[in-house]
Amino acid sequence: MIVVMEPGCSDSDVQHVVKLIRQLGLRDHVIVGTDRTVVAAIGDKRGIDKGAIETAPMVERVVPILAPYKVASREVKKEPSVVSLGVPGAAIGGTRIGVIAGPCSVENEEQILTAAHAVREAGAIGLRGGAFKPRTNPYAFQGLGEAGLKLLVKAREATGLAVVTEVMSVDQVDLVASYADVLQVGARNMQNFNLLRAVGHCPKPVLLKRGMAASLDEFLLAAEYIINAGNPDVILCERGIRTSESYVRNTLALGVVPAVKRASHLPIVVDPSHGTGHAYMVPAMCRAAIAAGADGVIVEVHPDPEHALTDGAQSITCQTFARTMKELSAVASAVGRTL
Amino acid sequence: MIVVMEPGCSDSDVQHVVKLIRQLGLRDHVIVGTDRTVVAAIGDKRGIDKGAIETAPMVERVVPILAPYKVASREVKKEPSVVSLGVPGAAIGGTRIGVIAGPCSVENEEQILTAAHAVREAGAIGLRGGAFKPRTNPYAFQGLGEAGLKLLVKAREATGLAVVTEVMSVDQVDLVASYADVLQVGARNMQNFNLLRAVGHCPKPVLLKRGMAASLDEFLLAAEYIINAGNPDVILCERGIRTSESYVRNTLALGVVPAVKRASHLPIVVDPSHGTGHAYMVPAMCRAAIAAGADGVIVEVHPDPEHALTDGAQSITCQTFARTMKELSAVASAVGRTL
Amino acid sequence: MIVVMEPGCSDSDVQHVVKLIRQLGLRDHVIVGTDRTVVAAIGDKRGIDKGAIETAPMVERVVPILAPYKVASREVKKEPSVVSLGVPGAAIGGTRIGVIAGPCSVENEEQILTAAHAVREAGAIGLRGGAFKPRTNPYAFQGLGEAGLKLLVKAREATGLAVVTEVMSVDQVDLVASYADVLQVGARNMQNFNLLRAVGHCPKPVLLKRGMAASLDEFLLAAEYIINAGNPDVILCERGIRTSESYVRNTLALGVVPAVKRASHLPIVVDPSHGTGHAYMVPAMCRAAIAAGADGVIVEVHPDPEHALTDGAQSITCQTFARTMKELSAVASAVGRTL
Amino acid sequence: MIVVMEPGCSDSDVQHVVKLIRQLGLRDHVIVGTDRTVVAAIGDKRGIDKGAIETAPMVERVVPILAPYKVASREVKKEPSVVSLGVPGAAIGGTRIGVIAGPCSVENEEQILTAAHAVREAGAIGLRGGAFKPRTNPYAFQGLGEAGLKLLVKAREATGLAVVTEVMSVDQVDLVASYADVLQVGARNMQNFNLLRAVGHCPKPVLLKRGMAASLDEFLLAAEYIINAGNPDVILCERGIRTSESYVRNTLALGVVPAVKRASHLPIVVDPSHGTGHAYMVPAMCRAAIAAGADGVIVEVHPDPEHALTDGAQSITCQTFARTMKELSAVASAVGRTL
Repeated sequence: MIVVMEPGCSDSDVQHVVKLIRQLGLRDHVIVGTDRTVVAAIGDKRGIDKGAIETAPMVERVVPILAPYKVASREVKKEPSVVSLGVPGAAIGGTRIGVIAGPCSVENEEQILTAAHAVREAGAIGLRGGAFKPRTNPYAFQGLGEAGLKLLVKAREATGLAVVTEVMSVDQVDLVASYADVLQVGARNMQNFNLLRAVGHCPKPVLLKRGMAASLDEFLLAAEYIINAGNPDVILCERGIRTSESYVRNTLALGVVPAVKRASHLPIVVDPSHGTGHAYMVPAMCRAAIAAGADGVIVEVHPDPEHALTDGAQSITCQTFARTMKELSAVASAVGRTL
Repeated sequence: MIVVMEPGCSDSDVQHVVKLIRQLGLRDHVIVGTDRTVVAAIGDKRGIDKGAIETAPMVERVVPILAPYKVASREVKKEPSVVSLGVPGAAIGGTRIGVIAGPCSVENEEQILTAAHAVREAGAIGLRGGAFKPRTNPYAFQGLGEAGLKLLVKAREATGLAVVTEVMSVDQVDLVASYADVLQVGARNMQNFNLLRAVGHCPKPVLLKRGMAASLDEFLLAAEYIINAGNPDVILCERGIRTSESYVRNTLALGVVPAVKRASHLPIVVDPSHGTGHAYMVPAMCRAAIAAGADGVIVEVHPDPEHALTDGAQSITCQTFARTMKELSAVASAVGRTL
Repeated sequence: MIVVMEPGCSDSDVQHVVKLIRQLGLRDHVIVGTDRTVVAAIGDKRGIDKGAIETAPMVERVVPILAPYKVASREVKKEPSVVSLGVPGAAIGGTRIGVIAGPCSVENEEQILTAAHAVREAGAIGLRGGAFKPRTNPYAFQGLGEAGLKLLVKAREATGLAVVTEVMSVDQVDLVASYADVLQVGARNMQNFNLLRAVGHCPKPVLLKRGMAASLDEFLLAAEYIINAGNPDVILCERGIRTSESYVRNTLALGVVPAVKRASHLPIVVDPSHGTGHAYMVPAMCRAAIAAGADGVIVEVHPDPEHALTDGAQSITCQTFARTMKELSAVASAVGRTL
Repeated sequence: MIVVMEPGCSDSDVQHVVKLIRQLGLRDHVIVGTDRTVVAAIGDKRGIDKGAIETAPMVERVVPILAPYKVASREVKKEPSVVSLGVPGAAIGGTRIGVIAGPCSVENEEQILTAAHAVREAGAIGLRGGAFKPRTNPYAFQGLGEAGLKLLVKAREATGLAVVTEVMSVDQVDLVASYADVLQVGARNMQNFNLLRAVGHCPKPVLLKRGMAASLDEFLLAAEYIINAGNPDVILCERGIRTSESYVRNTLALGVVPAVKRASHLPIVVDPSHGTGHAYMVPAMCRAAIAAGADGVIVEVHPDPEHALTDGAQSITCQTFARTMKELSAVASAVGRTL
């Protein structure tokens, strides 16, 4: 951490900051510059609220230096992590690109089985489908609950796809984990710290979606919560952030892919469905995600988007998905990977 | 809802949209314009995913018309709601401005009692203080838990202030409600729908903080979840949103105050501590909030910000708070209210 | 500037950075921390692109320390600047709050004279009105040009109000300056550096609007361009920034008021018309601006907003303006100022 | 345009809106819904400020339906435009991907010639390089001016590359056009409407960069200004937008590529250098841009980024560029194009 003093600060202002730094158990290092004096605080105390020093007299601001995450970082683990999805041959993070696809919500047996067979045939390794749905609108369809989980299991039995489904609260973790292969933590829950700890205690891999306004540090710290609780199998998922853009539901920030690859060993997939909000953009952004270096994509596919109960506008048809998979296969080769 | 067709759409494209609208149980109304045909869908079906129609052939986009919230709206309840904080004389929403103040976290008995006495003397009606703390960083101080709640009760007994404290998960609701007067739902949990329902079943008023990227509709729909679950006593709280600004921790969006007053009957308070992130800005933004028409402010006050365990940079001292309260009293008068 | 090295960097990586720093004419200072080595670069070289060092091997990032502006800063000039508007008794920046009001565009003689008389009577010191209009849409009304400037002069002669009007390009500066008292540089031109230099050579005060996505540093650097060119009479103007909020045209970021007061000696006014986009919000945000410490407001007032050629949705009527001025007078007193 | 009335509006409120619509020369169409009455206004009057109706009594809001641009739209011109860069074999917009590369600024003859030869050899068709530089900081290097233009011409003569360079103001257009093959309008000038008109009168193609907070409509309307002035040869350029993300200089919004392809016939290239701000991200985002369907990329390449006078942090070396071009060639094939 670097404490930047205001111009015109006195010696005793600097000494006061030095005292505060030492009280935190850190070492100090004063540098008197041409226009500014700064005090560096040295030592690894990730848990300390160093910002408090900002309120000391004649302190202009406090600049953190150290990344706040540790076990999620590349410093601690150099080689990229590969996360198995829990069914044979399905993993995210290696040379092979992994595609997870399926409807936003499980609606009924025919719908989910049709979708599962179609995405399996096109080359997906995982089946997405919501049973417990976080809905902005309390009047909207809230999912089939446990009945939906059972249909997902049926689909897995029929296709061999790994089941990826969302868990919305601590008390649902055991139930969902008893059916699902991968637990999804949604964007709205990325900083639901109790839920992060709960899935961290669970022996299933976790797909962690980036919050709608989350910084890179916050994203990796959310993963850190899960890993620290005992679960190293975290797959990050970029799904778009809120910006001033209005022609999309969210702005897909693909720069996060190389940024995560540089900062962390965790695999990252991209969700171009939520990341755009419009079906017509999904194939292009799937291709872009793989070209940017993502380890996979997670895509909303529905046999009949016009009648989807949820997220119809951003769901592609089974036909479009099959076509997109062919394109992704070509892009994967172009970047030295396979699908 | 208005369905905007693409230029060059055929009659059968329009008829297909008409069919989809009727399948949703809505009435249709086709308007052929100079450059565009639009189809209006009439009827109050808040729960339906109308966006699905966007995937129909030759549909350009779907424009919602109806506000998605109902019981939180001014349409349903014209007169402004006044929410009692549960201790005599403490309410938010009437002519009198209500100020809630106290430290970010309860740290120890001396700290919380000193803060409580100071803010009471200066005119606050509520005491804030976190016992369960949602922390971005897993290594940071996570709060005293139930021990903190007990200290808050002690402070209430000593001062008569209403205790406002955060509840982070469904399983904490009963415990926190047994100590607190007002349950706070934090910004990171604004769309934790299970938690919203749980506090909706609780007989204590709820202070609902706006999410960091929440739209006005999403904010009011989160309140709608709580009210629908049976709890009408919701106080909204603006606490700043994520933007491109970097000289603040968040951008305090005070325009939301007149917007909420127009759209809803619920009272709204403003949190200039999180809404700026810097103690030096807090007094100015407290004054601005009251001038904009807010029903109160919630402010982080610490007896010794330099040594605060959490949020030190944005905590003001007891002295600054007392001075600010005098200013707020003058501003309240200027807008026809009292403090 | 602080150069943060990556973990695991070698001595020669550090020495390479040291060499680069010295090549820039700066002094170096290496600090070996627990987890990270950082190299501080000391010296005031505002013009140098220090970011280039980021591409050196094993450099993680470069953190600037020094504020990039100088003559706009409080370091260089401690006392707040007061800018005269060029007509007797009209200034922005002292104890007295200054209000500039009038229509978005000058439309015709009757409109501008009606508006001018009304805002004068209510207590404004300046008249706003566009003659050259920057319009997003090429098909929209582009202003009356020089004819509009002549009408503004007529309005000044009739009322004594200072005329504030926009100049859009270098070649318009002399023409506009020959009629106007204050030259406005619009938000879209905040980083039109040639225009900034041109108004810097002009002997008229400049009202500089913040760009729609401008950082605080960029805002003050734009002022720095004008001051450096020889014109110290710069009035800053916050007019809202682009964010994810959709119930407003822009998000009025009032936190910039205390931030500017801390960083700079320049006066700052607030434009709640563009800063919200909706007439119903304008009175509330005028009050909030003054309560936050702004030196004035600039407001769109139209005798007949329903028929305004431009910005009708955010223009208030002369009656609403008169009422608002009474409220502002009370708020000004509450913060120790006059109107 | 759809005018949404407030609930509880009277017949005469609706009739008043109808009158206003007719005064604008539009036809009206009233639809009485279950909860809301809306009034559709029919007719193509792009230039009218319809928002003014929002201030009429009991109007909740006004929703535009028609896209505001015309000549830039796909409605008016169905087939994609191909823009020649003015040297043999160099065009943007066809099946062949076009790459423009070179340093941020022209610094000296050796630098620009080295860069030009290197990027030519690797397969670029255009050479970028700034002679007039828009600099946020008035103390920073402002470019070599006309001397820089002359060096660019030398580089063209040596390599056959089309010269792409920025023009910052109306009075520079003739000078820059006399040297350059393509005129670049920078992001900060995207809404400098006088400059847009001036380059619209010039017989050289224009590379138009998206503003830092520009909406899709504003971006296409800026192009509309240029086309309307007589110059159809506009190449759009996405270069990142300001968001809350801090690990990048800007957030590259690649979703704009399919959005532009759907709305407009104009070609679009992507600038991953400004769109990320960090050299390490540039190759990944170049690949993503092509995979998303962009017609080309424009990349900052410097023979010695550590010593670059401007934008060093985001400049890649000639070696990295050559490697990236090989990757782009593979990605181009994967999406059915060539490089």
